[in-house]
This record gives sequence, structure tokens and C-alpha cells, in this order.
Amino acid sequence: MPATPAAAASIYNTIALVVRPNTAGIEDSVRDVLAFLRQEGYSVVFETETAEHLNMPEIPSMSPQGIGEKADVALVMGGDGTMLGIARQLASYEVPLIGINQGRLGFMTDIPLEGMLPVLGKILRGKHKAERRTLLEGRVLRDGKPIHIGLAVNDVVVSRGAGAGMVELRVEVDEHFMYNQRSDGLIVSTPTGSTAYALSAGGPLLHPTLGGIVLVPIAPHALSNRPIVLPDSSEIVMEIIRGRDITVNFDMQTFASLQPQDRIHIRRSPHTITFLHPEGWSYYNTLRKKLHWNEYPSSDGKI
Amino acid sequence: MPATPAAAASIYNTIALVVRPNTAGIEDSVRDVLAFLRQEGYSVVFETETAEHLNMPEIPSMSPQGIGEKADVALVMGGDGTMLGIARQLASYEVPLIGINQGRLGFMTDIPLEGMLPVLGKILRGKHKAERRTLLEGRVLRDGKPIHIGLAVNDVVVSRGAGAGMVELRVEVDEHFMYNQRSDGLIVSTPTGSTAYALSAGGPLLHPTLGGIVLVPIAPHALSNRPIVLPDSSEIVMEIIRGRDITVNFDMQTFASLQPQDRIHIRRSPHTITFLHPEGWSYYNTLRKKLHWNEYPSSDGKI
Amino acid sequence: MPATPAAAASIYNTIALVVRPNTAGIEDSVRDVLAFLRQEGYSVVFETETAEHLNMPEIPSMSPQGIGEKADVALVMGGDGTMLGIARQLASYEVPLIGINQGRLGFMTDIPLEGMLPVLGKILRGKHKAERRTLLEGRVLRDGKPIHIGLAVNDVVVSRGAGAGMVELRVEVDEHFMYNQRSDGLIVSTPTGSTAYALSAGGPLLHPTLGGIVLVPIAPHALSNRPIVLPDSSEIVMEIIRGRDITVNFDMQTFASLQPQDRIHIRRSPHTITFLHPEGWSYYNTLRKKLHWNEYPSSDGKI
Amino acid sequence: MPATPAAAASIYNTIALVVRPNTAGIEDSVRDVLAFLRQEGYSVVFETETAEHLNMPEIPSMSPQGIGEKADVALVMGGDGTMLGIARQLASYEVPLIGINQGRLGFMTDIPLEGMLPVLGKILRGKHKAERRTLLEGRVLRDGKPIHIGLAVNDVVVSRGAGAGMVELRVEVDEHFMYNQRSDGLIVSTPTGSTAYALSAGGPLLHPTLGGIVLVPIAPHALSNRPIVLPDSSEIVMEIIRGRDITVNFDMQTFASLQPQDRIHIRRSPHTITFLHPEGWSYYNTLRKKLHWNEYPSSDGKI
Repeated sequence: MPATPAAAASIYNTIALVVRPNTAGIEDSVRDVLAFLRQEGYSVVFETETAEHLNMPEIPSMSPQGIGEKADVALVMGGDGTMLGIARQLASYEVPLIGINQGRLGFMTDIPLEGMLPVLGKILRGKHKAERRTLLEGRVLRDGKPIHIGLAVNDVVVSRGAGAGMVELRVEVDEHFMYNQRSDGLIVSTPTGSTAYALSAGGPLLHPTLGGIVLVPIAPHALSNRPIVLPDSSEIVMEIIRGRDITVNFDMQTFASLQPQDRIHIRRSPHTITFLHPEGWSYYNTLRKKLHWNEYPSSDGKI
Repeated sequence: MPATPAAAASIYNTIALVVRPNTAGIEDSVRDVLAFLRQEGYSVVFETETAEHLNMPEIPSMSPQGIGEKADVALVMGGDGTMLGIARQLASYEVPLIGINQGRLGFMTDIPLEGMLPVLGKILRGKHKAERRTLLEGRVLRDGKPIHIGLAVNDVVVSRGAGAGMVELRVEVDEHFMYNQRSDGLIVSTPTGSTAYALSAGGPLLHPTLGGIVLVPIAPHALSNRPIVLPDSSEIVMEIIRGRDITVNFDMQTFASLQPQDRIHIRRSPHTITFLHPEGWSYYNTLRKKLHWNEYPSSDGKI
Repeated sequence: MPATPAAAASIYNTIALVVRPNTAGIEDSVRDVLAFLRQEGYSVVFETETAEHLNMPEIPSMSPQGIGEKADVALVMGGDGTMLGIARQLASYEVPLIGINQGRLGFMTDIPLEGMLPVLGKILRGKHKAERRTLLEGRVLRDGKPIHIGLAVNDVVVSRGAGAGMVELRVEVDEHFMYNQRSDGLIVSTPTGSTAYALSAGGPLLHPTLGGIVLVPIAPHALSNRPIVLPDSSEIVMEIIRGRDITVNFDMQTFASLQPQDRIHIRRSPHTITFLHPEGWSYYNTLRKKLHWNEYPSSDGKI
Repeated sequence: MPATPAAAASIYNTIALVVRPNTAGIEDSVRDVLAFLRQEGYSVVFETETAEHLNMPEIPSMSPQGIGEKADVALVMGGDGTMLGIARQLASYEVPLIGINQGRLGFMTDIPLEGMLPVLGKILRGKHKAERRTLLEGRVLRDGKPIHIGLAVNDVVVSRGAGAGMVELRVEVDEHFMYNQRSDGLIVSTPTGSTAYALSAGGPLLHPTLGGIVLVPIAPHALSNRPIVLPDSSEIVMEIIRGRDITVNFDMQTFASLQPQDRIHIRRSPHTITFLHPEGWSYYNTLRKKLHWNEYPSSDGKI
């Protein structure tokens, strides 16, 4: 008689596997995970696109919507980009996410491939640290009518086209005029996005628990146009004043073209996503490692 | 029979006046305010130091403690520095603050002297926008025993002495190790302080309603040591690892000297302060004006 | 008998007038300048595009090439954008430039419209400070063959398209590998351009006499990718490693589309341009005024 | 008969050894170097302080002045701080410097200890890349009379004391007023110093061949107070307008206390120093390694 499978003691039964496509050598790792999960008694399904890339027809596949409705947890193997894509699609469901990094440590894919099975086993048995992340939703209005609606785990970015010197935006927060900004664009970011594009553009890091929204101008003409962190109850409206080839994008994954007088309304989404981290996980550990915080250019600290 | 004085209809009876010392021409403005307040039926007292500088012996004076216990509102005439000093002293009481700027618009002293009387009248009759601001409290421990306790409206700053190349700090947040930082120092700032020293050192603006705490490194050796915004429930501990002539200061107004192994514990104070702004007041208006947000170095917007 | 015209004593005889098109109220100023110059004995011509916009058929017009060959000085009325356009076209000739700003003070158009005539008179009589500015020339090579050649007064900018997350560039200087950079793009700027786009992207100011070339990354992924100032004898080569919709532009006025493996070779142009400033002109005065250097956000300097 | 020693073919005969004090395990490396140099036929002397720390009485010692007058080359074993100290003392002589790093790669000590002997051998036989670096000299005037003169390889820094909110400086360049600056201080840096403190404070990198001088404000009140790079022919004058406990330091190694109205005159020193690098050495290699230029926080480049 086999031992009672771990899944019996777990709150999770069906695990959806989402794997970054075209990743050299990933197949062996996937087979290891599959063998482990089935031995532990879990049902496993592939996300549709993952199924197409991996040649394992014996594993059933599901669309992101199906996963949202039927899976108990989504296990992502890849990088932060892979996580970003599926997280946004699952946002309106309550499916928590586990991230295994393929290659370098990710901000969201924080479990190393090497030695992942025991860590995964514990998480699935409930020994984890669950962490909620907020999302942004944006509606683009033209002549007052919505022409595009998007959701962002990281950021909503309005930016100028290559051939335009700048975009000018009129920004309002909670119906108060903030400024007219001339720049390459404006990043509206969640705490999750604060380690991504917003960071490159000079924005601060926001702790996920803080729950704010940060506006980070990209190469602003006014040198005092600094990043500003707003409460996440804020409603932000950007109106295009002038510029050419302007776009708004959501996590750099969905896009809409804009024209002067278009308005983009951004606020916190009613949905959130949940990451499951190993017990003892520390946000600061990840930051310190990813950002090389304890490495100094000066050779001996004496500058 | 005189009209019922305004004060009868007000929730405020006793107004404490705090005036920046040695300010040319301020006396006439003070007399105008006094005349107005008494005509409206309010009692007026001077804060002790204010009384010493103004030669008006007919006005009773009170210590900041007395004001905290007996006054209904404190009216500050001066700049943000004057406001900072009295706000910290009144923090443990429930006395709201009104700021009239003497000279240039302040972030906290946001009512212009010119035309202030009708504005003031309305605020005192309850036609105002009340805004709460958080404070930080810091305890310095040496060998585990507190040697200094301070309160800050703006910021708690640890910094190196002039003759030392740097200070090295070990920073922990909520008992998680964050980093060892080598720099000129570290600013731990409230949203209120985010427009002061923290801004000069490259920090983001924090909206007061957000209520976070921002850590801004001053000239850090590690180029990736960016400002980080934490939830205001965070407990931050800095330990001095090395450096000479190190000090911690609170709002640049109180100080303690530090030595290696000293630890500074910082968290949100249980106290808050309340500013009374005129109705229709907008935080973004003040920012835009103070930071010259709509002035561009490029002459014609064509870059 | 009329007094000997000033032009007789001047080294300049033919003045070319270049005026920003579609500028409200500019016509009266142009007539004033025309009257003044003719009274002083100078010949005046319009640049072709200027002639098209101004309805003054009595004034002869010339192409930029004609101006380069026949005019002694070009007088620009408009903003820095107008100056930029004509300066690049005149670069291979020896025609010095005078800039009169229409509206706000410009970095290059530094003579205010108000009261310009006596200032202009003195400059034309040789009472001026001549200042040389370097230019950059860039050659785009595809499969080793040049597909575009451009000249820049301000900057050569390689940047990603709106739909691409980043561009990756391999940068070499004087045949030494510098780095692979992932970013929104890279600005290669002259000292003249250091007050324009490069400044918005976080670059330093370069004094024109210094004559260096500054590389300013736009929103770089590596947080230590700082601006670097090179000697102007440097030959910079950027190779496109990956990215979509990439363009290179020269002063944001001419463009070429790029694809992976294209290489852009940039070096100082053999040509220079010369600005004529009024005597006593100071570069630092212009900087201080344009950048609001003596205005502080803190209201009382006590922060 | 011994082989002709290498020194016979070298332009160098006497090598001065300067070693960082109190460096664990350095003695063995020093003995290896000594044995190698003597075998090759060079005379070796210790710098006085080095001699005091190393217990090798058989090696003669010399003051920095003696080294300047009699040695042909100075070999520094340690970090950039060690190099900085001796380089400044040798600046008025023509003694070139070779830097071997003890521990991590330095900007100036760029030869790794591991495998150093053959590299050193080649350099001493003239197979090297010689690189000149400029220095700054500063004179502090009080009531017009010099009270301190200093020399800097890296930087001259004026900064406020711990108890003062800021220092206000009036800065002039070549007798033109630049600005009144309120800040924590101002760094005036050589290209060599541009990778040290100036970099931490937000300054650009300057290529050594460029030869400019960069002014980097530390936490300036005016948000548009950007670093500015000047030609190295510039004469910079800073006058203390207000502030307390102000100091000026040279390479953080010599100091003077300042008071309001003191003026500091800074210009390029007539002296230069020369580093000898191995053949094939690349400045960009060192930058790339020290600044981790090819390491990105994003895990997969897709941000």
C-alpha cells in the first residue's frame, strides 16, 4: 500500500504548469517536476501554449481561462517575463502563483531550478509565505468613449514615438491638476513594477506591502519632475496634449495607439495576484542579490 | 449690540501664535492678525519664544506644552522651518496647525501673508481641509540601552562627519537584513520630509495620504542603492558598522553623536499632526509651484 | 549726404535672415530688423523657407547652400530649434550665426527680441564674443556599406521603437569594447546638446570649450550605466544587437531605420559652427537663467 | 656567469615599493616581488611607512621625497587608497607608478596579485601603456591671504558639518559668476576622481585623456543643479557664503576648516602623474568590471 500522497494533505489538487517557450534544456526539468508532482498525487495540466512547445501529449492542456477556473495553483518555470504574462491573464481568478527561475534569479521567479523539488513540495503542503500584489487597470477614452482597456502587473506606460521629440501630457490625480509634463513618456507603476522599467527610468523601489502607485517620468524636460508615489486609491488621468506616434502599453505586452485629446484613466484593479514564496523568504534578500547591493566600485572602501 | 463674534460659531476659542524670530517687517502683520482675531472674539496667546522677540507685553504667553494643553489651534507665521519646530513640540497633543508664509510659499506654510485675513477667518470657522501627517520616532541604543530618543516631522538622518570618508550602516527592516550600505549617510523620511532633504538627495515625492517611509541613501558607494519606500508599519534598525564623527539628527534640529555598534530603531510615531488648509487647497498646486514643474529649460519645446 | 553706413566699417556685408515659421507677431520684429540693417547699409536676404512664410516679396531669398556660399552672417530669429536646423545646414561653410530669441531665452538664441537692435549693431561691427561649437557626424553601415550619413549639432540618438521592450547595443570606443547596453537608447551628444535631450536623460552639462563627447544612456537596465564623457578625438561605434523598430536620429531632425547588425560610426565632424554673442556674454549666465539655478524648493533654506 | 639581468636592458634601475599597511598575508607577496626584482637585477627600496610595517630590515627605506628624487618607478601594492596617498606625494617628481591590487581590482591598482610577476617584468622592460593623469591644486584664502594649499589626485571637496543644514557657496569660473549653491557640499574632481566620490554623488565618468574638471553638487537644494564638466584650463573659485563647521578636503586625506568669506581657488596642477599599465590595457575593461556594466537586474531582459 503506497503512502498517502502528499496531495491528500494539501489544499491544492490541480497544478497548472506554465513554461517559457524555446528554453534550451528546460524539458528535462519539466519531466522532473511532472514525475515529482504525480508521485505526490497532484493532477497536472499544461497551459495551452506550453503544451504546444513541449512534446508531451500525455499531459492535458488548458487555456489560461480554464486554468483560472479549474487549477488550484499555477507553477511558472521561466523568467519574470513568463510570470508577467500568465499573472495578468489569471488576475481575475484566485489562482496563486509559484515562480521557478530558469537561469538567473528573478524578482517574481525566485526559486532556483537547482534543488527546487523539496522546496516545491513544502510550498504545496502549505508551508509558504503568501504575498499579495496589486494590479493597475487602464481605460483609454477617445471623445469620452473607451477604445481600449488593459491590465498591468508591472506598469502602464505612455510614450512618444521614435520620430517625435517628446510627448506632452496633462496629468490629473483625483481630479486635481498635477502638471503638464513634456518628456519621452510617463510610467505608472505598481510596487511589482518598481523593480522593472520604472527603476531604469530613475524611480524608487516600492515595498509590495506598501501598495502605492508611482509615477516616473522618462527623460522629463523639467529637471524637477521627480518620481511621485501616490496612495493606491488614486485615480490618475493622463491627457495627450501633443506628440506623434504615441502609444500606451500594459506590461509592454498589450498596446494601443493614441492621439491628442485621448485620455487614459488609471486606477488600482479590483483584482490582485498572489505569489507563494518558500517559508523564510525575504523580499530584501531578493533585492540585495538582484541589485548587487553589497558590491562597491571602490576597491577598498576608502574612496 | 455687536454682532455675535465669529468665535462663538467656531469650534476654536484659543489661538496660539508662533512667529519666526528676527523677521523684518513681521510685527505689522502680527498686529493685523491680532486685531482681526480679537475682533472675531478669539483669545490669543503667544508661544514663549515668540513673546520674547515681539515687544507686545499685553499678549499672554505660553510654553509649547501649555499651548498643547490649552490652545485650540496654533497659527504659525514664518517658513517651513518655524512650522517644523513647533509641530514636533506639539505632536503629542491634538492641536491643529495653520501655516502663513512669510516670504516665499512653503510646503507647510501655504497661506500667503497678503490677503490672509479672510482665508484665516474661514478656516477658523471650520471651512477647511484637514490633513494628517505622520511622524517618526527614533531610539538610539548603545549596548542595548537607550541613550537618545527623538521625534521627526521630516526625517531622521544618520551621517558621517566631515573628516570621515564614509559611514557603513547595516540596515534591517522588520528583522530582515536589507543591506550594508557605505555612503555619506541615510535619510529616513516621512511623506512630509520627502519635499525637503530627501528630495535633494534624489528621493521620490510621497503623497501625505500614502503614509509610507522612504529610505534615501546619500551618495552611496553602490550605484544600485536606490531610494526604497516602505509601509509605515515598518521597524527600521540601522547599526553603525564603521565611520568617524557619526551623528543622528531629527529634523536637523536635535542631535546625538554615535559610535560603532550603536543601533537606531525607527518607526512611525503614535502621534500625528494636523494641518488646516483653506478649502479647495490642493497638494499638487503647492508642488507644482514650489518645484517649478511647468518651466522647461528648452526654449521652444522642440528640445 | 548720409553718414557712412556702419556696414562700411564692418567685416560683414550680406546678412541672411532665418525666421521661425508660424510665429505670431514675428512680422513686425522682422520689419524692424530689416529697416535697421538696411539703414546701416547691409544687404539682407531671406532663407528660402523664411521667404515663403513671410509675405515680403521685395526681399531676395536664398537656399541654405546659397547662404553658405554668399552670406557673411546668418541672423536667426526664433528658438533653439530654428537655430539647430539652419546651423546644421550651414556647418560646412564658414558663416557665423547670431540668435535672437522669440519668446523665452534660448541656449543658442540668447539675444532678447526686446532691445535687440543696438546689440545687433554692435555685434555686426565686430564687438562680439565668437564661440566655436563642435558637431558630430554619423555613418550608418549595413553589411559594411554606408546607408545613411548625418550631421548633428546637438546629438545622435539611437532608440527603440514603441513596441519593443529595449534595444541592446554593443558599444566600442577607439576599437576598445566598452559594454553591451540594454536600454531605451543611447544619446551621443556634443557640449551644445548637453543642455538638450542629454540633460533630460540625466547627463552632465559640458562647457563648449571642453569639446568632449558625452554618452548618456536612456533608462538603462544596468543601474551603474552612467553618463561617460570622452575626448572628442574618440571614434564611437554602436552595433545593434537586438530590438525592434530601432532608429537613429540626428538632432531629432533626420532619421534612419536600423536593424540588428547595423553599425553606427560616430566622430567629431571636421566642421564647426560659430556663434556670435554680445560682448560680455557669459555662458554661465544663460545656464543659470535657463535652469533656474538660484531658485530653491525649500522656502527658507533651513530644510 | 649569470645571465645579463633584465634591469640592464631596462630604463628603470631603482624600484620603490609602497605597501598597504596591516594587510593580512601581504608579506609573502612582498617577498615574492622582492626576490623577483632582485633576481632581475633591480635595486629595491621601501617607502618609510612601508618599512615600519614590514619586518625586513635588510631592505633600505626612503621617504616619499627620497623616492621622488632617486627612484625610477614606484610599485604600489594595496588598493586605490594606498595609490592615492603616494601618488599625491610623488606628484612633483617624474616617478611613474605601477599598481598591484591586493584583494579586489582597483581603478588605479589594476594588476591582480595572482600572476603579477611576468606582467611586472614586462612593464619594467618598457612593454607598457603609459597614461598621464591630471591633478588639482587648491589654495584657501582668508582675508586674501593663503591659509592652506593642497593637491588632489581625485578631488577637492567642500562640505558642511554634521550639525549644519547646508552650506551656501558662491561659485565663479574664470571670473564669471556661475551660481550660489545650497547643498551638502561641492566636489571638484579630476577624471581620476570621477570614479570615486563624484560618482557616488551622481557625477559622470570622465575619460582620463579628456582632461576636464567636473563639479558635482552633493544633495543640492536646486533640483536643476547638475554636474558640469569644465575645460581643465578653468580657474574655479568657491566662496563660503554661510554654513557651520565647513571643511575643505583634498582626496579625503588632508583638511582645512573654513569660515564664511573664505575663498578656495582651484585649478589644474602643473604636475601630472603617470601610471604604467600592461600592454593591451583598456580603461573600458576596468570600468566594465568595476561597475558590473554587463549585469542586469531583470532576469531575462524582457522587463
